[in-house]
Amino acid sequence: MIPQRVTLITLGTRDLGRARRFYGDLGWRPASEQEGISFYQLHGMVLGLFGLDALAEDQGRPGAELGTGAVTLAQNFATEAEVDAAYEAALSAGGTALKAPEKVFWGGYSGYWADPDGHVWEVAMNPYWPLSADGSLTLPEAG
Amino acid sequence: MIPQRVTLITLGTRDLGRARRFYGDLGWRPASEQEGISFYQLHGMVLGLFGLDALAEDQGRPGAELGTGAVTLAQNFATEAEVDAAYEAALSAGGTALKAPEKVFWGGYSGYWADPDGHVWEVAMNPYWPLSADGSLTLPEAG
Repeated sequence: MIPQRVTLITLGTRDLGRARRFYGDLGWRPASEQEGISFYQLHGMVLGLFGLDALAEDQGRPGAELGTGAVTLAQNFATEAEVDAAYEAALSAGGTALKAPEKVFWGGYSGYWADPDGHVWEVAMNPYWPLSADGSLTLPEAG
Repeated sequence: MIPQRVTLITLGTRDLGRARRFYGDLGWRPASEQEGISFYQLHGMVLGLFGLDALAEDQGRPGAELGTGAVTLAQNFATEAEVDAAYEAALSAGGTALKAPEKVFWGGYSGYWADPDGHVWEVAMNPYWPLSADGSLTLPEAG
């Protein structure tokens, strides 16, 4: 048994300074910044930016080629207009367009962009997933 | 500006049934399961298991080779014993050992394992990061 819990998401970066500037341009402010690592407070959890080679070494496999794309991080919003605004903000800061937001088959509205290291973010509105006022997401019962 | 927020982490899987069994063996219970996707409630956010090819297509790049490893998901614990127990539970369920938990230079205790699709999890105890009773993590002021 392990808990259903994620307390920290770490993104490996080829250029930590560039990544810090990118997320800074998006309006993010680190809660803690040390040489080689930055931590950002999210809702009840933390996101870290770290060096890609250092991350491979920390994982016990120095020199490994770490890949991106098979994990996506999504930001949900209450409206399509907020999705569009977030997508445009990401591209304006230097993010890479993957898919402009569009209506999708499951009844929502979704787009994708990538950060300078290829980490993939989704921006979405899901009408079946009401967000709390604090931006957290608790799934409705059943469904 | 985009919010400092992650509402959904999606893991692309080559064999969704295998991934469901693996996380089920870890004690995870889906809040919602539909054909092709499973959602697990975490603290104020959700983790989804989805098909790898479907995820590439959803990202607007069908056929893309999506990679793992450059994003890690960490579970923090209050004690080294809990870290060890989580690591052993992951290996017993069929996870791949990357680095057995050990004392690390920043003053904590940390190990890494990978799920059947290569998604990398860290299990850690950080004495400077007190967990809340509900398992959430709010960084101390300054630091």
